[in-house]
Amino acid sequence: MSTAEAKPPTEATPAEVRAAVRDATWTGPTAGACPGHLQANLAILPHELAFEFLLFCLRNPKPCPLVAVTEPGNPQVDAGDERADLRTDLPRYRVWRHGELIAEPADLSAHWREDAVGFLLGCSHTFDDALTATGVPVRHLDAGASPAVYVTTVDCTPAGPFRGPLVVSMRPVPGELVERATEVTGRYPLGHGSPVHIGDPSALGIRDLSTPDFGDPPEPRPGDVPVFWACGVTPQLVIPAAGPAYAMTHYIGHMFVFDHPSDVRLS
Amino acid sequence: MSTAEAKPPTEATPAEVRAAVRDATWTGPTAGACPGHLQANLAILPHELAFEFLLFCLRNPKPCPLVAVTEPGNPQVDAGDERADLRTDLPRYRVWRHGELIAEPADLSAHWREDAVGFLLGCSHTFDDALTATGVPVRHLDAGASPAVYVTTVDCTPAGPFRGPLVVSMRPVPGELVERATEVTGRYPLGHGSPVHIGDPSALGIRDLSTPDFGDPPEPRPGDVPVFWACGVTPQLVIPAAGPAYAMTHYIGHMFVFDHPSDVRLS
Repeated sequence: MSTAEAKPPTEATPAEVRAAVRDATWTGPTAGACPGHLQANLAILPHELAFEFLLFCLRNPKPCPLVAVTEPGNPQVDAGDERADLRTDLPRYRVWRHGELIAEPADLSAHWREDAVGFLLGCSHTFDDALTATGVPVRHLDAGASPAVYVTTVDCTPAGPFRGPLVVSMRPVPGELVERATEVTGRYPLGHGSPVHIGDPSALGIRDLSTPDFGDPPEPRPGDVPVFWACGVTPQLVIPAAGPAYAMTHYIGHMFVFDHPSDVRLS
Repeated sequence: MSTAEAKPPTEATPAEVRAAVRDATWTGPTAGACPGHLQANLAILPHELAFEFLLFCLRNPKPCPLVAVTEPGNPQVDAGDERADLRTDLPRYRVWRHGELIAEPADLSAHWREDAVGFLLGCSHTFDDALTATGVPVRHLDAGASPAVYVTTVDCTPAGPFRGPLVVSMRPVPGELVERATEVTGRYPLGHGSPVHIGDPSALGIRDLSTPDFGDPPEPRPGDVPVFWACGVTPQLVIPAAGPAYAMTHYIGHMFVFDHPSDVRLS
């Protein structure tokens, strides 16, 4: 993965980040870019599956918080203050055919389809900042690691061919701060919102917290309680499993940056 | 319009009302049935338009508050405590072909299609009760009339072929109770929620309040302020105008009764 710079321009506005991405002067991950602004995961699917995927998102709003949906074939999306282009304005993508990964380009122009529908789904990129800002320690940030992510035994509510397990991220939170962490993250409904579960991992079918399915093993401290939030990896597993004729998604960590503040409520 | 009884069984549970409707022992309007329970408008469209109509509802949540969406071809819907059938469990329907009204049956079984998708949209049936219960007089109820309904010059946010003006209902509210009416109706997001406009009708392009497009002329009293709420007639105009190969809707006033309380929030 090539990046023109080591870090995204944190002082840049969302429009400047999108422009840098479009010009390929920035092709790296967007973590840390534009603090306080909403970032989003991307899923692009054929029109014939758009109803079912939209319904899947509505039925599973915590793992799939819907921020924007595009018109079939039109790659433009309302970024807040201007129109942006889903083909060029994310730093990196993944392209799937019948559920198989076929490319990881920095530009989707060659892959775009006339019946393509884009879905932007909120992510938790700015959520950790909000926790830190209100005095809730985020252990994986302190360790320079990624949050631990687990595939649970809880099924999402299916819609058409879209079905699969809920995936969660876990953050160890000091017991006395669990209520605050719940309240703070609840202010970000487009960033997965409040926790889906607090405490006993076995309630989610997680046997061993020290062996996450994705991310880094957690580093809890004495008195920490495991707190679980719905995770954007959920649709990333659900989409290829549905085997659509084609799909395009963001590359992990390489998100779309909106002009909106991260605690925006869109309806 | 034939009705087996003059009034729906107000003491009956929603399940009992649906059963009476299914057995055709009740074929009249549902106003007054099951006070405190959610009622909904119905729209049924071909799968090929389901994505665009779902998007239209999401983009216009006040006129089109989404309560439930069915799987393509499956007429069953979760009524709350049991499954119900969209083909039989509303007292009366309208059937459209390419935007033209072709039938007004009491049962949809002969019209159902294999690719039919049902949308249940909240309505304001129980909203007037909530106003009355909190001391806000509802002038049209006092007069035994229907609320005045106006087609505005404000456009809904379009989605695919679905586009058209916002339609509003107006209730004259004593000036000192406007804030309360706003707050109370805001508790019913699935019943069109808080007002879309308060005061000057010309802001909505309404020239003369005394000549509504639907319903009865309002009977304001001195000191009353016109308060406008989004109205479920909006999609009833938008759907035929889009000219779908087929559409089926409830017959005006003949709604689906849910087991849910009317102030339920579904996500």
